[in-house]
Amino acid sequence: MKLATLNNGSRDGQLVVVSRDLRQAIPAPIATMRDALEDWARAEPVLRALAGDLEAGTAVGAFAFDPAQAMAPLPRAYQWCDGSAFLNHGTLMQKAFNLEPIDGVEQTPLMYQGAGDDFLGARQDIRLPSVSQGIDFEGEFGVLLDDVPLGCTAQQALEHIVLVVQINDVSLRALAPREMKTGFGFLQAKPSSAFAPVAVTPDELGDAWRDGRVHLPLNIHWNEQWFGHPHGGQMNFSFGQLIAHAAFTRKLGAGTLIGSGTVSNTERSAGSACIAERRAIEMIEHGNARTAFMQFGDRVRMEVFGTDGQSVFGAIEQSVLQANG
Amino acid sequence: MKLATLNNGSRDGQLVVVSRDLRQAIPAPIATMRDALEDWARAEPVLRALAGDLEAGTAVGAFAFDPAQAMAPLPRAYQWCDGSAFLNHGTLMQKAFNLEPIDGVEQTPLMYQGAGDDFLGARQDIRLPSVSQGIDFEGEFGVLLDDVPLGCTAQQALEHIVLVVQINDVSLRALAPREMKTGFGFLQAKPSSAFAPVAVTPDELGDAWRDGRVHLPLNIHWNEQWFGHPHGGQMNFSFGQLIAHAAFTRKLGAGTLIGSGTVSNTERSAGSACIAERRAIEMIEHGNARTAFMQFGDRVRMEVFGTDGQSVFGAIEQSVLQANG
Repeated sequence: MKLATLNNGSRDGQLVVVSRDLRQAIPAPIATMRDALEDWARAEPVLRALAGDLEAGTAVGAFAFDPAQAMAPLPRAYQWCDGSAFLNHGTLMQKAFNLEPIDGVEQTPLMYQGAGDDFLGARQDIRLPSVSQGIDFEGEFGVLLDDVPLGCTAQQALEHIVLVVQINDVSLRALAPREMKTGFGFLQAKPSSAFAPVAVTPDELGDAWRDGRVHLPLNIHWNEQWFGHPHGGQMNFSFGQLIAHAAFTRKLGAGTLIGSGTVSNTERSAGSACIAERRAIEMIEHGNARTAFMQFGDRVRMEVFGTDGQSVFGAIEQSVLQANG
Repeated sequence: MKLATLNNGSRDGQLVVVSRDLRQAIPAPIATMRDALEDWARAEPVLRALAGDLEAGTAVGAFAFDPAQAMAPLPRAYQWCDGSAFLNHGTLMQKAFNLEPIDGVEQTPLMYQGAGDDFLGARQDIRLPSVSQGIDFEGEFGVLLDDVPLGCTAQQALEHIVLVVQINDVSLRALAPREMKTGFGFLQAKPSSAFAPVAVTPDELGDAWRDGRVHLPLNIHWNEQWFGHPHGGQMNFSFGQLIAHAAFTRKLGAGTLIGSGTVSNTERSAGSACIAERRAIEMIEHGNARTAFMQFGDRVRMEVFGTDGQSVFGAIEQSVLQANG
């Protein structure tokens, strides 16, 4: 089942069920994604029945799905915990910047709290104050949860994954080093994140969903040039492990979003899902970074295709523009 | 005006207007605090009219206010940014642990993203898995905002402060050092925060609200023993400056919560608002920490009195208990 949220002028939009081919949609009888996630046991059968009608061509009131009208599938989240579950990314950053290795990084996932109050839709512009802040995209996967109890194990956690999403975790690289050094973590360095138009139930991924990972490549284009297609299967910690990490000292409210961190593969031929990583590789290979961060007017495209060749989440296609410009 | 949220079995509770003496309440015609904050211009006159009736004794449907029924005034926030605006606290921690000084700490506030999905009411137990995690209370002030634009100045930011709250930012001190060292910031080290029963409009504080600060002492008792009464006026950054810091690269959605960080004064006679700080002072003065962190069954009480001697926010009175115990 695929779900999206259409902009209706409200902060939380209107929940819709979307067809597998992303061509048709129908309004859900549950107003918002938040409502659905907070009572998923009741919502799921209702939404699945609608999805069945939509695929069968018998849904009354179906209309053409326009990804440009889509907000983030969950436009606001009360919790957004972003992991760094592809260790190759951290290894490259560490080598390039001669950073001290972090103790226990292979046993305990890195994770930060993000801001959940203002998620962007797939076609919304990214508006930022200055290119001097080192504007970067960051392609990753995420999962939306129902209520997770404190102390949940990684195995139990998998049962709380309701939907899978695709994220552009926009990052400001010039601001990150100071925020990391303070020990308080990212704040100004992580402006609003953006989401592919559609969230999907794990079963929608078929065999590509296993071991709590999305076993598909994430295709990244920057200004229409190939940038990378790293594969989600190389995630060192599963989403189950990431959820268990977040739930170690507290329960997680329904609608919590957990992110994988930038998708990163050991094979250089896979490219990267963020500019910072390409720059790190350049520093390691050539002694200096050759690729600049994003300029105003730049575009990024991120898309995932299923084993059937069909776009799974729809594409993120965004421009970076000057704020208040 | 004073507002609270009563537990009605829903995740967001029922918004009520509370009398200045905290004795009476009346249901607001706006269902939840979230709704009120998202349309404050419309909500404020309606709520103020009710508050006037309540003070005049003419409110129909008023009932006795029971703080034990209060959830957090805003039971969930889409964004919770906690500063560390009392520099004395950081200075003591730095001295005690021989930490490297943080560059620019007097110019740029320290701030981390917290989890907003599960705030506790003033009388709710704090349920945690293990005392070995170094359970600590942390007394602070906070403000709830309406929509704040990107790039807002500190002066402009003051206009976006809708309500003032009082917070117990529960902390797990044994987990914090590793999380700080990774650079990703606090996650497991910051379980659910708790709130005094009532949120107040800044005007309710009278002269004690000025320069974007709460100029009142925060009284802390641990197991009925005095622990501190540090004064909010010594805040090195104003709430306006904290908001501007958070809004430097992004807008902040209505209902964002900004915290002051633990209240801390240079005079030792003021005591402390968290155990970690008392331990730091002991380490500086005696070479070792003598006070242990909290045990299961321990109680903490935090309360603020106005210049008229009246409890401003009502008291936080909580026990720490074993989770799932």
